[in-house]
Amino acid sequence: MTNEEILSVTVLNSWKLVISRLDKVFSELDDEQRQQQIAPGKHRIFYLVGHLIATHDRMFPLLGLGDRLHPELDQPYIANPDRVLADPLSAPELRRAWTEVNSKLTKALERFRLEDWLQKHTSVSDEDFVKDPTRNQLAVVISRTSHVSHHFGQALLAK
Amino acid sequence: MTNEEILSVTVLNSWKLVISRLDKVFSELDDEQRQQQIAPGKHRIFYLVGHLIATHDRMFPLLGLGDRLHPELDQPYIANPDRVLADPLSAPELRRAWTEVNSKLTKALERFRLEDWLQKHTSVSDEDFVKDPTRNQLAVVISRTSHVSHHFGQALLAK
Repeated sequence: MTNEEILSVTVLNSWKLVISRLDKVFSELDDEQRQQQIAPGKHRIFYLVGHLIATHDRMFPLLGLGDRLHPELDQPYIANPDRVLADPLSAPELRRAWTEVNSKLTKALERFRLEDWLQKHTSVSDEDFVKDPTRNQLAVVISRTSHVSHHFGQALLAK
Repeated sequence: MTNEEILSVTVLNSWKLVISRLDKVFSELDDEQRQQQIAPGKHRIFYLVGHLIATHDRMFPLLGLGDRLHPELDQPYIANPDRVLADPLSAPELRRAWTEVNSKLTKALERFRLEDWLQKHTSVSDEDFVKDPTRNQLAVVISRTSHVSHHFGQALLAK
């Protein structure tokens, strides 16, 4: 492997690891546990998975990787806190969407070269990017990896 | 900035961000809240911060950056679950240790060049590293960044 390849694979290993961990927790819970709040008065694991799907789905346009697959999840799982809107998907549908979004995204990221990682993401202007070149695609993926871990730590509390 | 510098700064921005977030939460809590469990029957925020200090302190030898500052935190915060051993430090001492370990570590990481990021960490053998060159220092730092987020997500529940 070249240094460039090692770099990409290292970043993506972390990304895949946190996703597989959360996937494992979600798949091992029964329906009742998925509807359970992660702590008294806090959001359900079901909400948290919906929230992660919507967040990852937004990465397609953010990283210039094409159209979103599930924009309908923004309202229930990003724009609103838990239990304001009804869940638009059943648990099996939610897990399917989770796998679908993450697989497609990961496949696209696996084609990234160093120049792609260091390219600007679409929510930063050319002007701002000149001032701060760390607002790049790598920053987005490391940040989203951390974000999965953030909620994985919470999901574990519900087990 | 060169590509190499952008890469380092991008990785370290994420690292610093998660640390500053957790620092903010811990500093804003009063003593009673720090002793509170993050969820019924789970560990206290105090434990969680001790656990993160000990984990980061272990990064000095792991990344070949010299001796540890607080090996005495392993027994209460890594080897044992919460409330088995008494807290060896007061809240102000704990926060001081947290700042001390993270500052020294971050300063050392700021000197990393691409070859340092891609170098093997000390817990992998030369032989295994040839087979899997992604077991490098970058993998450790991304993984620890995620690990802080994991516990930050839990700490937020106690607020």
